This record gives sequence, structure tokens and C-alpha cells, in this order.
Amino acid sequence: MDKTIGIFGGGQLGRMMAQAALPLNIQCTFFEANTDCPSAALGPVYSAKAENGLSEFIASADVFSLEFENTPLADVDVLTKNKTLHPPRQALAIAQHRLSEKALFDELAIPVAPYKAVTSLEQLKSAAAELGLPLVLKTSRGGYDGKGQFVLRSEDQMDQAWAELGPAGELIAESFVTFSREVSIIAVRGQNGDVKTWSLAENHHHNGILSHSIVPAPNSADLQPVAQDYITRLLNHLNYIGVLTLELFVTDKGLYANEMAPRVHNSGHWSIEGAVCSQFENHIRAVAGLPLGSTAVVRPTVMVNIIGLHPKTADVLALEGAHLHLYNKSEREGRKIGHITLMPNDSAELTALCRQLAKILPNPLALSEDMTI
Amino acid sequence: MDKTIGIFGGGQLGRMMAQAALPLNIQCTFFEANTDCPSAALGPVYSAKAENGLSEFIASADVFSLEFENTPLADVDVLTKNKTLHPPRQALAIAQHRLSEKALFDELAIPVAPYKAVTSLEQLKSAAAELGLPLVLKTSRGGYDGKGQFVLRSEDQMDQAWAELGPAGELIAESFVTFSREVSIIAVRGQNGDVKTWSLAENHHHNGILSHSIVPAPNSADLQPVAQDYITRLLNHLNYIGVLTLELFVTDKGLYANEMAPRVHNSGHWSIEGAVCSQFENHIRAVAGLPLGSTAVVRPTVMVNIIGLHPKTADVLALEGAHLHLYNKSEREGRKIGHITLMPNDSAELTALCRQLAKILPNPLALSEDMTI
Repeated sequence: MDKTIGIFGGGQLGRMMAQAALPLNIQCTFFEANTDCPSAALGPVYSAKAENGLSEFIASADVFSLEFENTPLADVDVLTKNKTLHPPRQALAIAQHRLSEKALFDELAIPVAPYKAVTSLEQLKSAAAELGLPLVLKTSRGGYDGKGQFVLRSEDQMDQAWAELGPAGELIAESFVTFSREVSIIAVRGQNGDVKTWSLAENHHHNGILSHSIVPAPNSADLQPVAQDYITRLLNHLNYIGVLTLELFVTDKGLYANEMAPRVHNSGHWSIEGAVCSQFENHIRAVAGLPLGSTAVVRPTVMVNIIGLHPKTADVLALEGAHLHLYNKSEREGRKIGHITLMPNDSAELTALCRQLAKILPNPLALSEDMTI
Repeated sequence: MDKTIGIFGGGQLGRMMAQAALPLNIQCTFFEANTDCPSAALGPVYSAKAENGLSEFIASADVFSLEFENTPLADVDVLTKNKTLHPPRQALAIAQHRLSEKALFDELAIPVAPYKAVTSLEQLKSAAAELGLPLVLKTSRGGYDGKGQFVLRSEDQMDQAWAELGPAGELIAESFVTFSREVSIIAVRGQNGDVKTWSLAENHHHNGILSHSIVPAPNSADLQPVAQDYITRLLNHLNYIGVLTLELFVTDKGLYANEMAPRVHNSGHWSIEGAVCSQFENHIRAVAGLPLGSTAVVRPTVMVNIIGLHPKTADVLALEGAHLHLYNKSEREGRKIGHITLMPNDSAELTALCRQLAKILPNPLALSEDMTI
């Protein structure tokens, strides 16, 4: 192997990074509490529970990255005494703290929904008075897939909302944004400052979990350059190296930034087949200091998540042109255990494929609707 | 993991099979003399040199296949007492013996160049008298990448040819076929008898080693159905399961079969990016009893071998749209250590990319010519 990249985390994102790294003769190592994780098929996993786990992990690689946005900053600080992490610590720190993230969006003139910091029930009441109801109360730290959130629709939910989320520390109250759809933009920045951006993904959720993404997002020609501009501001400001994701709401006032993830993203899984160079390969290229690959779309693509329960592999593979990616994870409610990529020729074919898929998937989530590509 | 497939061999073909198997939750194990082989990154390697290597390998998997066409039949016979091998033993036995292979082609009315069996200098002389010169003398067993062959151009080379190849046992003398180009057809047959065929590859060699393949082979619309018919006859006759390759010469009398390989093939590496479903994934699907994927071409593709010496990774990745596949092999003259996939829009772009590549590759082989796609 020519180089070794150490990855904080060992889930499916690390697994798919390592799959992309292998043909470049780049080996990955992982740091993860569960050593029997999805990434374990592709490289050694150093246990985050073992006494010398971190120091052994740090010794195992030339350069480091992450697939887990809640990687403890304390671990990063031990690492960066001797080794380099891409993306930079600052990006991670900001992404771990919603209020810092909003402040950065403000600083870079990236529009966000009106928000207020909330650290007491009184502040929550005054935020509600100022922003109006409904509003979304979120913990500033932690929270993903719709967890750590409370949608406050009436005054009499105030105490309940505070009781549920107050103990989590700093909160953020956001205006409830009326949006027509949610999109995400993913970009990569290389060590020479090159930036490449994939096409916008249109993301559909079910109970707070991503159900499927359509790329390019339909009717997004006007939105693409705007989103591209926003993410480029973030990448350059942070002197970022690697893949960054920005989730956005499409509103009648334009795009509002929701949050960023300092890593490859579920809404970018389509790029394995659908783009010339995938988010995983380009992340590895950036971290390894190699030239970036083209992010051009090969063909419109739909990525469908497999949540909780496995479909029959044979049923999925019988679908015309379907690609299956399983993560070797055990079944559990709400858990992402794989995804399926479809590359239909038109909306009619997409709708037909998705209807077939909805019958095959134990958890079809939001898939039964008519779909547009 | 849902299933384990044991592979005889552990080279780059096994490595790429295992890469395709991983997202289907299929684990591969390998049987190979050198346990530090290219496949070792993706699964356990059982040593062909160890006393219990074969029995441990046989115990390691549910179903078996191969990436090495010279897999000893004795090993296969031990395996098939208790476990199943795809493709069938008979296909392997025939492919290991050129005379049996020619006899099978004759039986299935697949045209071949006129040939004679040769087991003595006298037979060689009478073959030369009957077939005329030049002729190609080949060993019936072993030999690849141009080894084990002698092109006999004049009567006075008779003794030298016999001295070189005679000790190898049974020989075959073939008419020297005047061909305009060499192509290969790759097909896969599933456990339900389904057959899917990829587009013909046009193969360019340098000193007997494959330099590059162009897919679809230019101007091959007439040849494709003929080649497809030939390989389908072979697959059905052999009750074959998995990927089979048939090398063919394009002559003014039509296609002549050269030889078959009962496995995925170097001239099919383009299919990783260039086809909807690659030769590696479809081979794994077939061996695992899963439905086959589409073999349709995504886009015309050129695969270029990296022979002997590595180019700089950064130089290759800087080429627009280039995909790099390294096999984690050490450098050695004439050794296949990686390949590069290019997906140009037209012949001009291809020629330009290949000229750039010819400068980057330490061994550009046959790449400096103008090229057509």
C-alpha cells in the first residue's frame, strides 16, 4: 500500500471510503467503539474502548480523517499534536454546535431561518414571542435523524418542550420554515484549494430519516449556482480539505441553510454509480493530497435507503439496473443498513421502479408516491 | 455477511471479485500460495503451501469459484466431494488443454484456424506440410501472455521450435491466421440459465501482453451477434455458471475462436465503470445464485493496463475522468500491476487522453498510436 488513512468512526461511511481507497493502493484504519463494525471488512479497527486504542490508532496511519461528525474534539487534540486531520478541527467543532454553525452562516452571509439562543424557559418564551409559533427547538449539541428536536406549535407546549430538551444544555429556537423541499449540496476541496461540487440532491424524509435522494434535484438549475456559492464560501473560509455537505431548505425566499456535515453524506451515496468520481473517492483523494476527480453526473440517479430490515437481495437485484449496497449491519428499527441506487431513463421508469421497490422493501418509507426525475 | 464464496487464486481478479461481492454482504476467501497477494486486503487467504491449506479453504466457504484458470484439477476434485464449484470442472479441464478446447469449438461449429496435434518432430513436419508456413506452435497445457508459443516462419526453424516446446508434452500446430484485429466476448450465465453478454472488446497487445481494450470494439455491430452466438453455445453446452471469456480473431473469413478463459478477464476490466453491472459483480451474482445485472454499456470505455512499473498516482488522477485500479503488487517486468479506465466522449478526446497517458506511463506499450472509439 502506498499510504494509510486513519478514519475516526467505522460505520458504513468509513466502509465506503475504504472501498474507494483500495484501488488507489490506500489502506484505511478505523477508530470505533465496536470493532465488529461495517468498516472492519476493509482494515484494522482500533477500539475506542481500549486503554491504548487511541495511541495505537494514531500510530497506524500517515494522515487522518473522519466519518463520524461527533468525533470527540479531545481525541482530535491528542491526534493533532503529531499528525494531520482533514477536515480541520475547526470545521468539526462548528458542526458539533448549532449556535456556532448559525453564527458562521451569518458571518458568510448564507441565509438561515431566524433563530435565537435559548438557555432558560424564559428565553424560550421570549424567543417564541419574537419569532412566532410554530418554532423548532433543537439542542445545540448532538441530535441527528430528527432526534433532539421539538416542534412547538402552541403556547401550552412550552413547559413540555423545555422539560424534554432543557436538560440537554444550550438550545436553539428556530423559526419554523415553510419550505417546498429539502436539498443538499456536497462539495470537495483539495489540498491545492481546488473545489468541485456535485449536483444538488433532493432529499425525502420519513419520520426524520432520509428515505431517498434524487439527483440532480428536479428543477434546480437556478438553485445549483446559489448552493454552490454558499458551500464554496464555507470551504474556503474554513480552509477545508475533504468533502463537506450543506443541507438547505427551498423556500419562497430562496435557499435557507439548515446545517452542515463535515463529512461524506447519505445524500451523496448516489455518486458511487451516478457521478464520474464519487464523494468517497474524492474525499480520499483530497485527504491523500491527490488531484480531485470530475463530479459530473453520469446519469440521473435515485438513492433509496434500506432502513431497519433487509429486503431479499435477489428481489433487489432483479430490478433493472439496480445497485445494492449493504453495510453488513444487524437489523434494528430506524437503522440505516444499506442503500439501493436506481438510474432510470425517465420519470415514468423511475415511478415504476420505485413502486416495485416499495413492494420489496420491508420499510418503503416515503417511496410509494409518484416520482419525478 | 450473508454468504461466503471461496476463490481458487488470490490475484487482482480475486481482489476485484471481492470488491464487487462486499456491497452484497458476500465475503470471499482465497486459496493461493502467496498469502500476501492482491486479494488479501479483502478476505482470509488459505495457503496452498500449507499442509491443511486446502481442507481449511474448503471449510471456509459455502460455494466456490476461481480466478486462476490453471487451478489444479486435483484440488477441484477434493473440493467437489463436498462442495460446489462454479464454473463446472469440465470447463476448467477443457480450458487447460488447447486440443480439447479446439475439439469443443469444432463440436459446437465455432470456427477456428486449421490445426493439428503434434507430439513428435515428424508430426510437426507433416503439420507444416499440411497447414503451410508460417504456423504457430503452442503447448497444449500452460502458457499465457504469449509464453509457450513459437511462430514458425521457415523450414529451418523446425528443430529449434521442437527443441523449445517439444519437452512441454502435447503441442498444437495452428495455421498462422491473418487477422485485422483481436476481439473478446465476455458473457455470464446464471443458475437459472439466463445468459447476458457484454459488448465486444477490441484488444491491443504489445509483446504478447494486453496493452489496452476498447469497448464497444469499433465497427463491431456485425460481429457482436456472431460472437454472442458462439459464447452462448459454449455456456449452454457446458451448463456453465459464472463469467466466461472467448478470444476471437477478426479475419476476412469472419471470426475465428482463439481460446476461452473460464473466468473474468483482463479485457473485461472496463466493465467496472463502463457497464451497468461489471464482469466481477455478475460473476459473484451467478456463483451466489442471484439474478444477473444488466451488461449494457454506460459509455464507450478504454481500459489501459499498467505493466511492470507504476506511474505516479497523481499524474493518472489528473487526467479528466480517469479511474485508477492498482492491485497492490510489487513492480516486475511484464507484470500486470494495475489498470486505468478512460471514458472519452469521442475519438479525438480518446487520442488526446492516450497521448497524455503514454507520457505518464513508464510502459506505454501500444498506446502511442492514434485511436478510434
